[in-house]
Amino acid sequence: MSNIISGKELSNIILDGLKNKISKIKEKRLPKIAIVQVGDNSASNKYIKHKIKGANNIGMLNEYIKLKEDITQSELELQIKKLNEDTSVDGIIVQLPLPKQINANTINSLIYPSKDADGFNPTTIGNVVLNNTDIYPATPSGIIKLLEWKNINLVGSNVVIIGRSNIVGKPLANILINKSATVTICNTKTRNLEEIATNADILISAAGSANLINKNFINKNTVVIDVGANFIDGHYCGDVNFSEVGEIVKYITPVPGGVGPMTIACLLENVYKLYLKNN
Amino acid sequence: MSNIISGKELSNIILDGLKNKISKIKEKRLPKIAIVQVGDNSASNKYIKHKIKGANNIGMLNEYIKLKEDITQSELELQIKKLNEDTSVDGIIVQLPLPKQINANTINSLIYPSKDADGFNPTTIGNVVLNNTDIYPATPSGIIKLLEWKNINLVGSNVVIIGRSNIVGKPLANILINKSATVTICNTKTRNLEEIATNADILISAAGSANLINKNFINKNTVVIDVGANFIDGHYCGDVNFSEVGEIVKYITPVPGGVGPMTIACLLENVYKLYLKNN
Repeated sequence: MSNIISGKELSNIILDGLKNKISKIKEKRLPKIAIVQVGDNSASNKYIKHKIKGANNIGMLNEYIKLKEDITQSELELQIKKLNEDTSVDGIIVQLPLPKQINANTINSLIYPSKDADGFNPTTIGNVVLNNTDIYPATPSGIIKLLEWKNINLVGSNVVIIGRSNIVGKPLANILINKSATVTICNTKTRNLEEIATNADILISAAGSANLINKNFINKNTVVIDVGANFIDGHYCGDVNFSEVGEIVKYITPVPGGVGPMTIACLLENVYKLYLKNN
Repeated sequence: MSNIISGKELSNIILDGLKNKISKIKEKRLPKIAIVQVGDNSASNKYIKHKIKGANNIGMLNEYIKLKEDITQSELELQIKKLNEDTSVDGIIVQLPLPKQINANTINSLIYPSKDADGFNPTTIGNVVLNNTDIYPATPSGIIKLLEWKNINLVGSNVVIIGRSNIVGKPLANILINKSATVTICNTKTRNLEEIATNADILISAAGSANLINKNFINKNTVVIDVGANFIDGHYCGDVNFSEVGEIVKYITPVPGGVGPMTIACLLENVYKLYLKNN
């Protein structure tokens, strides 16, 4: 099918580019990512494995700090402060979710914006809104790159985003607003969701609800970006009923192989950008 | 007309409340706002006069720092740093617009978030997006208060915002997203603006374009919020053709006497909130 936007393909292009740039670094330290995990969540273990593998593949240094599940807020804060002050570290990520005793907002606020690889710090988010930065949270960044790669027009386009999370929906909406799209952001309280969606030029589903998007949400000119990462009966799938929708729409991202690999590539690209800024 | 939402009335209620609270402060210093102006822009002179008058009326201390038009970036930054360190000052505002030699983003980023009365600092904006703060930029804050005052439902409502400025459109969109509205944010590139607007439950125009909103943009159930502040032939007006639209819609804010006085009241309320946090 020619209407598939392959995140796997584009992420490989990005990663190859980073690998090439890093391989040319001489007589200076290499970029480094620090990955902090609290506890032993199995999905987190998997995601982190992918991130470390990605970093190793492109020659990026990495430090994996796995902390005990019952760590206190102040112990974790101390760890972040150490990494903030460590001049060998360019980007810090704290893998979510965090256990209940930890205030994730406080942790994200503590990471220096100059080392905020995930883009979850309020200052980073604010600069995204104000169009003051080229460091976007990784998933929104990946989505923008996929759209631009396929020369999909954003200026004046009707973009509908389903989902308003702090890490996808809201930052993505602000980036698209700055790129002169007309953006509608929907949530679980939205009335007439199907009607709103069918009028979209670009429909981005980040609802986390398998098979939410069927043929009633789309038209033949819709570009569908599926940000869903759902596990149904041990099977990994997105928000879109791909077999029903895929044949009709103009473009669509698959799951797996769509937004997922872009997120990792863009995270590592953020670390490289921070490295350049801090050097 | 019973469908008018009077910002004048609500702002007086807010200001009376602040006056009452400030009058009860004993044996402690009073809240203080510092207003920085560069140059002698006549509209700025007028706005600042209103802010000072408002502060004086409620018993809030104020310091008006008027700097020469050709001040350098570093001179202005030094002034901000002084005010940041001045423990008698709770809120700092730098009146916009600033002259060309000044980078306004850098200036706004420099104001401590703990003294950011206008809410233009990236960290403040980021915390608005993340729903981590009750300090909103003054105009969006005023609009939310007007809607809540009239018990206008936000959850699941279709809100259309025309205009995507850093000080109104974008922060307002994020606040409304957090309040579970379905938010569409339009700009000058938007196609079918009339069609999008007529489907709104709440239509907020912050376009800065006199008479933009006529009867083709509304229906009898629309709540219209007019954020426009336009001068046409020496006459002050909003974005809405009030005589045409006012009789049809469910609710409407007038200009003058709508959003304008709310902005000043909410700015002073922000200073009072910062005073409480910093004490």
